[in-house]
This record gives sequence, C-alpha cells and structure tokens, in this order.
Amino acid sequence: MHALIVHCHPELESFNRALTEVAGATLREQGFSVDVSDLYNQDFDPCERAEHYVNRDDSAVFSPLREQRHASETNTLPEDVQREIARLKRADLVLFQFPIWWHGQPAILKGWFDRVFVNGSLYTSAMRYDRGYFRCRRAVCSVTTGAPEFAFGPGSRGGDIERILWSTHYSLHYMGFDVLPPFVAFGIQGHGYTYLDDEENDRHLNVIRETWKERLKTLDRDKALRFLGWGDWDQDGRSKTGKPGRLTERSFRV
Amino acid sequence: MHALIVHCHPELESFNRALTEVAGATLREQGFSVDVSDLYNQDFDPCERAEHYVNRDDSAVFSPLREQRHASETNTLPEDVQREIARLKRADLVLFQFPIWWHGQPAILKGWFDRVFVNGSLYTSAMRYDRGYFRCRRAVCSVTTGAPEFAFGPGSRGGDIERILWSTHYSLHYMGFDVLPPFVAFGIQGHGYTYLDDEENDRHLNVIRETWKERLKTLDRDKALRFLGWGDWDQDGRSKTGKPGRLTERSFRV
Repeated sequence: MHALIVHCHPELESFNRALTEVAGATLREQGFSVDVSDLYNQDFDPCERAEHYVNRDDSAVFSPLREQRHASETNTLPEDVQREIARLKRADLVLFQFPIWWHGQPAILKGWFDRVFVNGSLYTSAMRYDRGYFRCRRAVCSVTTGAPEFAFGPGSRGGDIERILWSTHYSLHYMGFDVLPPFVAFGIQGHGYTYLDDEENDRHLNVIRETWKERLKTLDRDKALRFLGWGDWDQDGRSKTGKPGRLTERSFRV
Repeated sequence: MHALIVHCHPELESFNRALTEVAGATLREQGFSVDVSDLYNQDFDPCERAEHYVNRDDSAVFSPLREQRHASETNTLPEDVQREIARLKRADLVLFQFPIWWHGQPAILKGWFDRVFVNGSLYTSAMRYDRGYFRCRRAVCSVTTGAPEFAFGPGSRGGDIERILWSTHYSLHYMGFDVLPPFVAFGIQGHGYTYLDDEENDRHLNVIRETWKERLKTLDRDKALRFLGWGDWDQDGRSKTGKPGRLTERSFRV
C-alpha cells in the first residue's frame, strides 16, 4: 500500500508539520510506503495560467480546460503537474494536511486542485464522481483551526466544519475518491500555540498527536462519507428527487 | 459612491472580462466611481509566506496571523496588500468576478482573501461578523460555471450553488459586509463557448450580459443574505439554540 501526503503550511516547524510527521511515521509502521508533496517547499505555483502550457491547442485564447485536455493528450502537461499526477496515481490513500484559512484550503492547496486535477486524463464528463478515475482509492483531510472546538458546533460562530470542508470533499468525490471523515485539530494558533497556557498547551498538542496516530491505525475501518452519485441523477445530471443531498451521510464526529 | 471590482480570470478576452466590463460601465452610469483589481494582470501572489514580511515580530517562526497583526501595527504590510486594502477602504460596494473552479474560488482569488483580509487592522476577535470593519458596505459575487443551470439544482450533479459559495460568502460576512445574492452565469465554457451552437451561444451570452446589467441597476434594492451574528451566540461563540444556521436566509434565485 502506498500513501501520498499533500502537506501545506508556510512554516517548517508548524504543528501541521508535526501532524504530517505523525502520519508519515504511523503509516510506515502500518506497512505503507509514503510520499510527501510539500507545496510550500516545492514552491508550487497555484495559479492556472497560459504560461504553463508550452504546446497550446489555441494559442490565441487561453481556456484552462481546453489546454489541460490538449496537454494531457499530447503529453505536454507542465512538469510540476506531471510529477504530482505520478504521485497521485501511485497512491492508494491520499492525505491532505492543511490549516483552515478563510473557511477553506489555503490558496496554494486550492491551486493544487485547480492545476493537478486535469481535464482529459484524470476526468471526463463520463469519468467523474462514483465513476471517477480514483474510485476505490481513499482520501482524508487533516486540518487545523485557530478557534476552539466549541466555536464549530451547529450554528456556532466559526461555521460548521462540514460546510467549511464541503467544497474540498466534493471535489475529491468528483475525482472518484472515497472521502473519509476528516481529522480536525481545533484551537491551534499559528505554529502551535493555543489559547491555553504553556503546560496545558503541550498536553493539548500531545493529545491531538496521539488521537491522530490512533485514528491512522484504524483508517481501513473508517466508512467513507456518502455523497450523491450517478444513481441519484437523470442523464442530464438533474436530481431524481429534487431534494438536496445531505452535506454528508452523517454528522461526523471529529 | 465608489465600487471595487476584484476581477479574476487568466484570459484577457474571457467572458468573465465581458461581465466585469458590463459591471464597470453600468455602475459608472449609476454614478459610481469604479476601481478594478485585476489579479492575474497584477500578477498577485496568492501565497501567504514569510518573505512578504520585512519587519518580523518573530523572525524564528512564521505565524501568518501574528505577522499580519504586527505588520498592521507597524505599517509594514506588503505593498500589494496595502494597495488592495486602500482600494477596499474606499469602496461602498465590492464586486467579485470569477469562474467557479473546483467548487470555489480560483486559487489567486482565495489567496487574495488569505493575504488582504489581515488580522489586526481589518479584523480582531471583537471586530468581526455584524461588528466587522466593513459593516454597512455591500459585497456581491458574480460567477461563471461550466455546467448548465439544471446541473446545479438541489441534489443535482454540480452541487448546490449556495454550498459552492458558502465559504466565500461566510468570509465576507466575517469581515462585516452585507453579502448580496450572487449573480450566476451558467454554462460558460472556457472563454465564452458553451454547449450551445454558435448563434444560440451568442444569444445566451447576450441575455446574461443584459440580465447582469439590469440587476446592477437595482442592486440598492437587493436584500442581503442573512447569516447568524453576535445575537445568536453566547460570549464564547456557541450557538444559543444549537441549531445550524441555514445556508442563507432563503434559497436565492440566480
């Protein structure tokens, strides 16, 4: 079994880094081989733009989907994108480690989705959702929040974690992944300081590391979040029932 | 009255550009002065990183919030961020024009949120939500989607537009803006081609431009989306009722 950790934090000594290291070590103990894509360290360019495409299908007007498709077909995708896709294709499990910034992924990780999940080779109109390229592979988000846990309850100030992660999860579902419930480390300020005093903070961070470690050991028993799929839609993509899908099958406990 | 349009598309001749031009012209006819922040054209760096801060509070460990706060206090924010903040502070209305990519903002726009909405001068723990810096100012998202409108109904394949835009809207609410219902141009492929044949496509795009123009003329009559606020939470930020807020007050018609 092989895992890819997509790691996203601008500070080398961040608590996100500590969680990535816990994940790498624990997964190796479980028999996984592990790759890490460290987006800041790689100086990954999150911006989809014409300059990335050396062999344009339409040299006059830049349409990202059109050029992604053409570059897939002609094997001229940008080098950094090719490297990320090769890592993805090897992975049975993909883990995303990032801080929640402005109710979602930091820009560098959002851009990884924008640029790496290319039209043509990784998805087409027929190869999406439960027929997606990465079906039968698993993905899981491990995130940190600045505010403490009670601020993320239903109707509370921070917003519901399920809504905060909906776009990320739905994009992974679009690519075919089985999306596991996220791991959420609440109340992590900056590089690891929290609202708590130092001793209590150290204990808080240790508990989180241990909880993550234990969770990783039993990841194969986790049930994937349920999203709507092809069976729920007519051939045009309309809902058969007209009812919104639940955010997820169940309100996950994090 | 002054408006800022934050424009985000990598192609100069995109349909997003056409919508930005319709907005600029229509708002000027209504008596607004208009600034445009064209993020790709400005080569805006969406990545929050240590190198942006010349006067570090903690030179050993990079904590974005800490450095944002310190740079705000010492007037040493990055030049591009200072320019965007100056534009924001002048604006009574802020309009975001962008294509929906992977169920949210393109990375370059997400990074504009990450870097420009700085801790310290633009928000603090007490100056947020309905007590936010930008209270009594309005913000509106104008977006394009690749898939046609019927794919975005409740439970349909594309996902609900309200969920897709929730993070963006909630972040604007966090900053104090009155967030108006979005304008959504469905079925815009690439730079303006759609699933329709050319003649029908031209008509489709014209209808969208005209609809946007008419909407902009009566924007002052639009009611803002309703989000939870300080009156709904206890002093720790917990919901008083324990019920999730609705995604928005009403299912908006787009």
